[in-house]
Amino acid sequence: MRGKSTNLRIRLPVFLFVAQVTIVAFYAAFVTYDDQADARFQNNRTKPMENAVYKDYPMFTDIQVIIFLGFGCLFAFFRLYGFGGMVFNLLTAAFSIQWAILVQGYFQFSHDGKIHLGVINLIYAEFACAVVLISFGAVLGKTSPLQLLVMALLEVPVFAVTEWAVLKYLKINDSGGSILIHLFACYFGLGVTFVLYRPHLNEGHAKANTSYQSDILSLIGTLFLWVFWPSFNSSLTLKGDDQHRAILHTFIGLSASTLTAFALSAMLNKNGKITISDIQNVTLAGGGDSGGVCGYDDNSCSCICSGAPVEGDPKLHKLQILIPGLQPGLGRTAREQALFQVAAVFSTIGVSTLGGILTGFVLKLPYLAPPSDVFCFDDQLFFEVPPDYDSPLKLNNIDDSAA
Amino acid sequence: MRGKSTNLRIRLPVFLFVAQVTIVAFYAAFVTYDDQADARFQNNRTKPMENAVYKDYPMFTDIQVIIFLGFGCLFAFFRLYGFGGMVFNLLTAAFSIQWAILVQGYFQFSHDGKIHLGVINLIYAEFACAVVLISFGAVLGKTSPLQLLVMALLEVPVFAVTEWAVLKYLKINDSGGSILIHLFACYFGLGVTFVLYRPHLNEGHAKANTSYQSDILSLIGTLFLWVFWPSFNSSLTLKGDDQHRAILHTFIGLSASTLTAFALSAMLNKNGKITISDIQNVTLAGGGDSGGVCGYDDNSCSCICSGAPVEGDPKLHKLQILIPGLQPGLGRTAREQALFQVAAVFSTIGVSTLGGILTGFVLKLPYLAPPSDVFCFDDQLFFEVPPDYDSPLKLNNIDDSAA
Amino acid sequence: MRGKSTNLRIRLPVFLFVAQVTIVAFYAAFVTYDDQADARFQNNRTKPMENAVYKDYPMFTDIQVIIFLGFGCLFAFFRLYGFGGMVFNLLTAAFSIQWAILVQGYFQFSHDGKIHLGVINLIYAEFACAVVLISFGAVLGKTSPLQLLVMALLEVPVFAVTEWAVLKYLKINDSGGSILIHLFACYFGLGVTFVLYRPHLNEGHAKANTSYQSDILSLIGTLFLWVFWPSFNSSLTLKGDDQHRAILHTFIGLSASTLTAFALSAMLNKNGKITISDIQNVTLAGGGDSGGVCGYDDNSCSCICSGAPVEGDPKLHKLQILIPGLQPGLGRTAREQALFQVAAVFSTIGVSTLGGILTGFVLKLPYLAPPSDVFCFDDQLFFEVPPDYDSPLKLNNIDDSAA
Repeated sequence: MRGKSTNLRIRLPVFLFVAQVTIVAFYAAFVTYDDQADARFQNNRTKPMENAVYKDYPMFTDIQVIIFLGFGCLFAFFRLYGFGGMVFNLLTAAFSIQWAILVQGYFQFSHDGKIHLGVINLIYAEFACAVVLISFGAVLGKTSPLQLLVMALLEVPVFAVTEWAVLKYLKINDSGGSILIHLFACYFGLGVTFVLYRPHLNEGHAKANTSYQSDILSLIGTLFLWVFWPSFNSSLTLKGDDQHRAILHTFIGLSASTLTAFALSAMLNKNGKITISDIQNVTLAGGGDSGGVCGYDDNSCSCICSGAPVEGDPKLHKLQILIPGLQPGLGRTAREQALFQVAAVFSTIGVSTLGGILTGFVLKLPYLAPPSDVFCFDDQLFFEVPPDYDSPLKLNNIDDSAA
Repeated sequence: MRGKSTNLRIRLPVFLFVAQVTIVAFYAAFVTYDDQADARFQNNRTKPMENAVYKDYPMFTDIQVIIFLGFGCLFAFFRLYGFGGMVFNLLTAAFSIQWAILVQGYFQFSHDGKIHLGVINLIYAEFACAVVLISFGAVLGKTSPLQLLVMALLEVPVFAVTEWAVLKYLKINDSGGSILIHLFACYFGLGVTFVLYRPHLNEGHAKANTSYQSDILSLIGTLFLWVFWPSFNSSLTLKGDDQHRAILHTFIGLSASTLTAFALSAMLNKNGKITISDIQNVTLAGGGDSGGVCGYDDNSCSCICSGAPVEGDPKLHKLQILIPGLQPGLGRTAREQALFQVAAVFSTIGVSTLGGILTGFVLKLPYLAPPSDVFCFDDQLFFEVPPDYDSPLKLNNIDDSAA
Repeated sequence: MRGKSTNLRIRLPVFLFVAQVTIVAFYAAFVTYDDQADARFQNNRTKPMENAVYKDYPMFTDIQVIIFLGFGCLFAFFRLYGFGGMVFNLLTAAFSIQWAILVQGYFQFSHDGKIHLGVINLIYAEFACAVVLISFGAVLGKTSPLQLLVMALLEVPVFAVTEWAVLKYLKINDSGGSILIHLFACYFGLGVTFVLYRPHLNEGHAKANTSYQSDILSLIGTLFLWVFWPSFNSSLTLKGDDQHRAILHTFIGLSASTLTAFALSAMLNKNGKITISDIQNVTLAGGGDSGGVCGYDDNSCSCICSGAPVEGDPKLHKLQILIPGLQPGLGRTAREQALFQVAAVFSTIGVSTLGGILTGFVLKLPYLAPPSDVFCFDDQLFFEVPPDYDSPLKLNNIDDSAA
């Protein structure tokens, strides 16, 4: 009976076809190439190897790995929800990026009535996508793909407006984007999970756990993020020595926080053993992110926020390094700039929390096919699964009955 | 008894040593560095950072990931044939690339009696290798490594000649290579599987299925291809704005076809559930490829062909975008150029189908150790396997007997 | 009881906090940016895209993949030690790199009382890290994380001094670094395992074996190394045609040795079957490395040494190609230079063997919590493990009792 209400046979295709046709129509009507991708702007003196694609594309592929392989593997940590974690990540990302190109294009990259498109826009769009995926992590296993798509549909424009307003009116440097992301994703996710909170899921759901293989898969995801994090963090900084320093800071911060993660994990466990989820969570904190590192219950979003810049020395330090605006400039004193920065932080928190709460209420619409409690964290609900799907479970049953 | 006829202890080493020694001898006799790799062509005014290696190598590493990790994981989708999929992919690729460097070198990169070698040749060779691997996908689990090597031995020169003739006489731009690949691989694979067709394998082979872990592994392969597909598709376009556009088109096409894949998968399943193999297959279609996505039976090659440019609007659109030759040029009108293009398509189809059929007959030679029906899709035949190799199978047996 | 002596709750955090605080203090006191990362050295005429970060960073990310994903997956080959292989690799690497930046910085990158830091230093540090990880491979499963950290603490400076002395006094070109690494890591590892030798572990430890999934995971690691090995091998060669050739040689050598690996594996197996560990081991030998390819017992280090340049034609050939110093130069004849080269090889072997032996004795200190024989190759000792952790084992038990 429950099963019926989550049947996606009509709803999901309808949403996807309408969305894709609309997006294609908007692209056809409003998108054109930017100067670097447009043949009309090249001439005999244009040096092909100076095209911006060679500055931006290497960073873009690194971020692609983070988004699709990193988050994809990381989100496959539930024992019986590997398909869901990995495949809904792909679906949500492929939709969010296309959608973000349009929305960010409208706010930040349009002139002469057209959105101007180059690889640089893809990088911006993948940042917006990362925001959505961090929120995805907070509701992992407890939402239908339709809910995830609607969440992306709503979160992308709220994020894009916030990003645009903060960058334009509070004059925070591009690289501030990487801070905005964590703040925004954190509080938006908190808002959504606050509304979607389901008490029964916190009493120890039988499927809300990992297996040896899924833990390893998730570790691989962590390693993908680890390896390419300096690219993510530095991709929108100014080219040259600025980017050089951003890479160094991110790498060294990441290495240091990795050691700290191991220390804390062993220290806080009563047997001195290391907990895999600690490594996944805390390792990335120092790199300026911990968002991919969704939790295992409805309180998980708190861990997401550990990446936010307001809470610890390393973050504040990073804030000062990564945001040149904190130095005097733009006709502002350092103090004035700091105030603007604080204003940016608080308005981001406000808008994202409110946006998350409102989105949460929309996601409660029954048409969006939320899984019942018993089918949370369970690939069977939305996927055809192979015969051995729950064999470890069966195995344990055999074991138990034998004991 | 059957086991004897597939024992590789002598045959495989003999083939490999002869092949490797021959290849090394040919390299020693006929291969030299190209201008960009040759110290004699550098002088005081040479700027090291303008060496072609810095244009080509980043694209090359991306394609390396596609070939070895992408196809390797993708082909590991059979429950009991993970070693075979991943390891024979490595073997076939390592052989095909070395062989293709020589054959393509002879046709396209030789002057003064020497083949001139740089990283750009490696990219071309990996394109030829991709063709072989797509055909590999069509016969996955049903062939011995010796058959695969012989297939590569024959397919590489047929492809190289076709590529050379089409590019030289029909004057299709380099980037047409990416279309040639799909057409050629599709019809060559069809030819081979047509000859090797085994009726019993289509009646539901007990081992021709996936497991939860192998599906996830294969999804990771899909994601590797997804992430680096823009590099593959754009690697041989002209540098500068052309390459910039090729990247944009591939990425956006891929994103759009991913949404479509999810929509179709849910729509065509009677319970509205998503089928993992649909995601693997259709996702990539929009990116200009679906070849890696071999099927589960002898009809599989049809799905491979979904990447061919003759069948749908997006492909034709792509044809026009990626082949500048479709614009007037080379002293031809647009109409004339279109005719040349059609000629290229049909001659490619003809040569590859014929080549595939002939290759299929060669592969039937008993010396090449084809696995018997019962040992298809089974790593035990060609690999030492660990003790837990078929434990899910055993488990299900236990389960069944308990029920 | 045994459990107590390996409890890390206090020891590991103490080591890590002290180490990390000390490292941070040293960075604060002695590290500054190099010219390319320092804003003060940029001016109006500086072209941002000519910053060294764009030469070095692409190679650096490739090496990052090798270190964290390649070695991480490769070392996860034990059935019940997947966490240990992958996670201790991360811990050891994150510590080694930070430590190597300081030590190598002191010897090679310091002037005006400061260590000058850019992405190039990170590449050097990851080479030192690779040395440590190769030694890690030789003691995999038989050491506590504390022992690994102490090994890294000792091995990094011994390596850094050797590297510095060889490069400075024996005037071997930078690219020689890739030879130094293999020699050093090989003999250091031999020294350590010689001292730590445990006879019981060679009599067939019940846990010292692989599973189907762990073999596949380890193959993925091999493929990561395969794909990015040309970057590793060429990252410190001179830019331009030198690097171009280093890439070509590495790639072709790797492909050839891959075919040879398959030939030997089938030939040396009595049933003509391929052994997965052979593919993992020998494949990489031709690429100038086989270090990641730790063995399954205490003799494993011998296989590590197969990457050393002293033992076969391909290596010697490589030696001549990669070390321009073997050509006359530096006011030396070719013969003199060859003698210097031999001196470098033997002093490296001497220092590393001695260093390894001494380190082995330090690692025997009981405070470092070495696992007892029975808990070797077992994640339970140092990790919280999920419920299905040893289910294949349980399964086999069931099976056995049923038989």
